[in-house]
Amino acid sequence: MTPDISLPRLMESLRSLGQVGALDGGGVCRLALTDADKAGRDWLVARMEGLGLTVHIDAIGNIWGIRAGHSDTAPVMMGSHIDTVATGGLYDGALGVLAGLEVIATLNAAGVETDLPLAVAAFTNEEGARFAPDMMGSGVHQGALDLSEMLATRATGGTAVVGEELARIGYAGTAVPFTPAAYLELHIEQGPVLEVEGLRIGAVTSVQGIHWTEVTVTGQTNHAGTTPMALRRDAGQVGFAIARAADAIAARLGPPQVATVGVFELSPGLVNVVPGTARLTVDMRNTDGDVLDAATEELLAEAQALAQAAGCTIDIRPLARFAPVVFDAGLVDKVARAAEARQLPTRRMPSGAGHDAQMFAPNCPTAMIFIPSAGGLSHNINEHSDEDDIGAGAQVLCDVVCDLAGAQI
Amino acid sequence: MTPDISLPRLMESLRSLGQVGALDGGGVCRLALTDADKAGRDWLVARMEGLGLTVHIDAIGNIWGIRAGHSDTAPVMMGSHIDTVATGGLYDGALGVLAGLEVIATLNAAGVETDLPLAVAAFTNEEGARFAPDMMGSGVHQGALDLSEMLATRATGGTAVVGEELARIGYAGTAVPFTPAAYLELHIEQGPVLEVEGLRIGAVTSVQGIHWTEVTVTGQTNHAGTTPMALRRDAGQVGFAIARAADAIAARLGPPQVATVGVFELSPGLVNVVPGTARLTVDMRNTDGDVLDAATEELLAEAQALAQAAGCTIDIRPLARFAPVVFDAGLVDKVARAAEARQLPTRRMPSGAGHDAQMFAPNCPTAMIFIPSAGGLSHNINEHSDEDDIGAGAQVLCDVVCDLAGAQI
Repeated sequence: MTPDISLPRLMESLRSLGQVGALDGGGVCRLALTDADKAGRDWLVARMEGLGLTVHIDAIGNIWGIRAGHSDTAPVMMGSHIDTVATGGLYDGALGVLAGLEVIATLNAAGVETDLPLAVAAFTNEEGARFAPDMMGSGVHQGALDLSEMLATRATGGTAVVGEELARIGYAGTAVPFTPAAYLELHIEQGPVLEVEGLRIGAVTSVQGIHWTEVTVTGQTNHAGTTPMALRRDAGQVGFAIARAADAIAARLGPPQVATVGVFELSPGLVNVVPGTARLTVDMRNTDGDVLDAATEELLAEAQALAQAAGCTIDIRPLARFAPVVFDAGLVDKVARAAEARQLPTRRMPSGAGHDAQMFAPNCPTAMIFIPSAGGLSHNINEHSDEDDIGAGAQVLCDVVCDLAGAQI
Repeated sequence: MTPDISLPRLMESLRSLGQVGALDGGGVCRLALTDADKAGRDWLVARMEGLGLTVHIDAIGNIWGIRAGHSDTAPVMMGSHIDTVATGGLYDGALGVLAGLEVIATLNAAGVETDLPLAVAAFTNEEGARFAPDMMGSGVHQGALDLSEMLATRATGGTAVVGEELARIGYAGTAVPFTPAAYLELHIEQGPVLEVEGLRIGAVTSVQGIHWTEVTVTGQTNHAGTTPMALRRDAGQVGFAIARAADAIAARLGPPQVATVGVFELSPGLVNVVPGTARLTVDMRNTDGDVLDAATEELLAEAQALAQAAGCTIDIRPLARFAPVVFDAGLVDKVARAAEARQLPTRRMPSGAGHDAQMFAPNCPTAMIFIPSAGGLSHNINEHSDEDDIGAGAQVLCDVVCDLAGAQI
């Protein structure tokens, strides 16, 4: 049996980092490469050094600490991120990094050595809230994103540049990225499934494919009182119908298909003016890439038809097209069995959100461990996970890592 | 036969006032009680005096000029407004006032006297674009709005106060309002009906009743990727469905019922977040007050049901409830017959927009004359009416006024 992690020590660690960039009323703001992010990084590096890890920083600012193993091979890596959205919670990202540190602390305290080295990593700008795209650090680390291009990225709605900000906060390093022996990420679910089903551990099988599409409908601005219905070219009503169609497609296809219209803007946006323009976004996701492609295709055809029938024109702009990512079946199995061995009710499930883990999946055995999010809330200062679930997730992480790294128990 | 108006003189007048507050690229901005409005008022007063009219200004800043008749009774009044929206056209409002001046100029030039006096009026803040409510000056003039309350009105999204602005621009007068013998208003249609039907004069029978309702739907903000459709409380989709329902109700009831969703806002308004709040406005209009009441009632019941079915709550706020106004049948008939006598294709039609005339309708014989708006455009710098139609409208106004006032031809 692997040693037991210390929940009080892990909670202290989460609360301590949670004070860096803390918001009045709860939650944290550690937008990537801001002063608050730098403070969080400094905190993390100090903790890593305190645990005896050798700290490395690469050119995109990823931080990882290595605990040596008996063999001088690629390490088993635990990782996630410590940047947050503007109104983030304490656990999104931070849990995966700090649970990694807790595994190290547990092995240190128990005097357990491993055949393979262990690594704990925090990747730069996972959220994408300040600089797009998201998963920037892990993407560069695993070769999916181009370093020079990412360093030149300008802040969304701002003037800051990634490379300059990295230099400014002192996190433009020179360490060379590598492919780990395996990658494991503990994360809050950020959705309601585990809580609703009364489960405590999710063995994540895959990350859903994601299609983001922006649809702009152009009709004719007209007076709401003087323009008969039959003479209108109402861009708003076409937009509303497209939004309803997205919902209907997801309902018809059934789980795991989801569709969300999160942005909807009318112009000129006045009570008594028939809208001349509607702009909306549709976020569609599915673990099956073919079904997702067909769903998006169906929606866009229907959008075209709706616009044409109303005398409007339509402009369709794909904002994102990510194919689904499938995690390593053997490693997912290890996660599920480790949870069962600890008597933790578990299920296999896809991830609806993107995570750093997906950047590793093409290159090495990769899996994720989910714990419940209260009410499914995330990217919200009221984001919460129960301490018992936090402890359970960290324990499963520890158990699987000990297995993978050949812990000398 | 009444004398012919001079189209060149009327067009010169429209273009001259159109230079006051002119915008680059066309159109004008003479928001009520601004310096541009003052300049327009000064221009108007000078023109009135040039035509020999006695100018009066009342406490809410309405301006009217009187041409004496043989009898010392209430005058036949022609009127409209010279304030505009922020990006207004040259004809909305100004046409009615300047055509009134053109009638005076025509009678002066032809040496035609009338039994009843004539009045030409420009009412303060018809648009309501800077200070709500709209039709403020005519409402006070005819006793539908309270003077003290209107003088205390603060600018929408600003600090200016009506009474202070009137004093500042020198248009806080002391003239006493009165009920005219009859009220006639020439106005652009601001809708497409006359143009589409190939007609040149609309004999306006009524002003539609107007119901404005704000609907706020509250659901639950959730992650778009991690929240299955069945576990969502998507305020956006409820809002979209309500917007579609408004459209369907208008389609089913048929003309003259119209319904417009001109404002639609989602919160937080992010691509990958299920909206927690949707706010929309519904503008419903009908000339039949009972049908309009039933339409609004049906929509709100459906909105409630849609919200409940989706686990959302709903807040309904009536922003405006104006009953329809019916114009004087005899006067409408005079307008139609005057158009026919001039071989101008005409129809009787309701007004979809509100106008100063509706404030007079309860108190004296009132009617309106519409001319076509190119493309139905209004409240737009590209607002346009053909010169021939402008001349036709002014001629019909002149003919009806001569009839009503007992012109000595």
